[in-house]
Amino acid sequence: MILLIPGPVTTRPEVRAALNCDLAPWDNDFRPFYSAIRQRVLRIAGGRDGEHAALPLQGCGHFITEAAIRTFVPPGKKLLIPSTGAYAERMARLAREAGRVPVPLPVSPVARAEPAAVAAALEADPEIGHLGMVYSETGTGVVHDVPAIAAAVGRRVIVDAVSAFGACPLDISAHPEIDAVVFTSNKCMEGVPGIAFAVCPIERLMACAGNAASWSLDLADIYRHALRHGWGSFRFTPPAQVLNAFKTALDLFDAEGGQPGRLARYTANMRVLYDGVRALGLRPCLSQEMQGPIIVNIQAPDDPRWDLQAFVDALKRHGFLISNFYDTEMPSFRVGCIGAITPEIMRRFVAVVGEVLGELGFNRRQAA
Amino acid sequence: MILLIPGPVTTRPEVRAALNCDLAPWDNDFRPFYSAIRQRVLRIAGGRDGEHAALPLQGCGHFITEAAIRTFVPPGKKLLIPSTGAYAERMARLAREAGRVPVPLPVSPVARAEPAAVAAALEADPEIGHLGMVYSETGTGVVHDVPAIAAAVGRRVIVDAVSAFGACPLDISAHPEIDAVVFTSNKCMEGVPGIAFAVCPIERLMACAGNAASWSLDLADIYRHALRHGWGSFRFTPPAQVLNAFKTALDLFDAEGGQPGRLARYTANMRVLYDGVRALGLRPCLSQEMQGPIIVNIQAPDDPRWDLQAFVDALKRHGFLISNFYDTEMPSFRVGCIGAITPEIMRRFVAVVGEVLGELGFNRRQAA
Repeated sequence: MILLIPGPVTTRPEVRAALNCDLAPWDNDFRPFYSAIRQRVLRIAGGRDGEHAALPLQGCGHFITEAAIRTFVPPGKKLLIPSTGAYAERMARLAREAGRVPVPLPVSPVARAEPAAVAAALEADPEIGHLGMVYSETGTGVVHDVPAIAAAVGRRVIVDAVSAFGACPLDISAHPEIDAVVFTSNKCMEGVPGIAFAVCPIERLMACAGNAASWSLDLADIYRHALRHGWGSFRFTPPAQVLNAFKTALDLFDAEGGQPGRLARYTANMRVLYDGVRALGLRPCLSQEMQGPIIVNIQAPDDPRWDLQAFVDALKRHGFLISNFYDTEMPSFRVGCIGAITPEIMRRFVAVVGEVLGELGFNRRQAA
Repeated sequence: MILLIPGPVTTRPEVRAALNCDLAPWDNDFRPFYSAIRQRVLRIAGGRDGEHAALPLQGCGHFITEAAIRTFVPPGKKLLIPSTGAYAERMARLAREAGRVPVPLPVSPVARAEPAAVAAALEADPEIGHLGMVYSETGTGVVHDVPAIAAAVGRRVIVDAVSAFGACPLDISAHPEIDAVVFTSNKCMEGVPGIAFAVCPIERLMACAGNAASWSLDLADIYRHALRHGWGSFRFTPPAQVLNAFKTALDLFDAEGGQPGRLARYTANMRVLYDGVRALGLRPCLSQEMQGPIIVNIQAPDDPRWDLQAFVDALKRHGFLISNFYDTEMPSFRVGCIGAITPEIMRRFVAVVGEVLGELGFNRRQAA
């Protein structure tokens, strides 16, 4: 079964094979292994030794996003979160429930956020100390130009790069305004899910100690722990097998040429999919110019008999699994371009979509 | 390499083999798989349908412990945490940083906490609404009689059963005073680490909604999500491979006769170890009566040349890995009796300890 979803992504057999181990996180052989992973993650984010720290956290993308908000935004303080889609809403909820004050900014669901509009919203409210922004919006498929926006706004920035990191470029050393870039072992890094990461400036981690009001979700404490116990030490039991697989995923990432290589493959996957479904008579939700390389939302056929679950089930019988829900306003189906997927696999998928539409007898004609 | 540590434990090859998969958590085939896991976990805890809920949380034991505290203890309120050892201290820190007020109660590190003493401490301070207690203290090796204490104190109770669940008996239906029993996929359940669980009374989950001040760590929200989206739905991306392996671990748990079977094997492991090291001239930190079946701390030989790391390294050359640190007051080394370990393996380990002490020339005579 090939997963064409925004995550957990399809992984390579080498990655899954590396799960077959038992590891002790306090072992002296594990420590250099673990600190090397942190070092590699730091470099992928453009971090510099002694200036930035890579901070792993057990769990999922939501946890590391909440941890970044708790650590850097003081309780009761405001952060602007442009309303780019479902994941921006989730970031806002994480902030609100943690006692911070998310301020929304309307953004078109079919276009990239405008740096000038974000800057204007911040200028209008000097009480907003932070911008929180989703780099690749899974809900819409738009990849926002977060590096350009971050550079333009003159506030501290938290980047939710969960669906972007490893494919979309980000050099934290070129962005002194960034407090945290957060992401996970899965998605574009193509490890299995179970561990998340933040890359942060050390100076800010020290300045913000005491904000988090949660030991579990305190990035400043993860940094302090590393200072005291070394970069090879975990505070709490890590998912050891997941980490071992992530090391293999990093090897494959390097072998592919790192971020540029990965972006090139995902972009090729997206192109095959985007052009392929159009050739079938379907219409993607985004214009070619706005379409990001991570996920493509495709409008549901304009047919009253359209049934997303029946469509998903039929694709599955052909060996492809896509999401059975969507986050766009109009009915759509969504297809992930990330994971261990090649343009050749995507070509097969497009052919299967054509077959399945025929099998199920759905009209391919779409509303204008 | 055999891991004889309190976790991550040695797993069985079948469990690790089940990691080799890619799963989509929103797939209609995954949903019944996942809700069946929750149902099985509920039953192991003695929970009843419609009365209790099994609430999975991505991450580690500390996260689920913090989640239980945040969910059930209102901000600013007190909870008594008997000072049973390193993990009680960690529970207290989780509570304190979350803005709750942990109240310590001195407990001997070499004996079980007295129900009467805990009850008296609670009677002395009516402002303390909760008791938080570690069932099996990894730091000392003592398994406290938490069911008896919980029944005796007349307050709400949070049980950290991370190192106990699956081996030590606990029937939440017999304990209406318990708000949460928390544990993980690893330890005595013998899955790989990556997912944690709480089993809680539904009535209390509903009454305590709004306490957590963290979306990530809100058990009431995990329950609410299940009500809205079904018991087969996750809020956030789960460690899918870890869950698949946990299903296999549950099958092996059942095949062994469940909790009584597991307790019997661990107790046999502990007896072989306890008697074996005594026969070698070493002295366990606990009396036979106080020694729990999960972990055994053994006093370091009374030899000025004693070097724990050298001892650990030598054992490792023989294929056994133990912790290279200890949490007891006196120098010691600790050996886990849990995981995919049999009395036969433990006999081999004891023989290796004897060999290694000889190799390294440590005096086995110990201080009285």
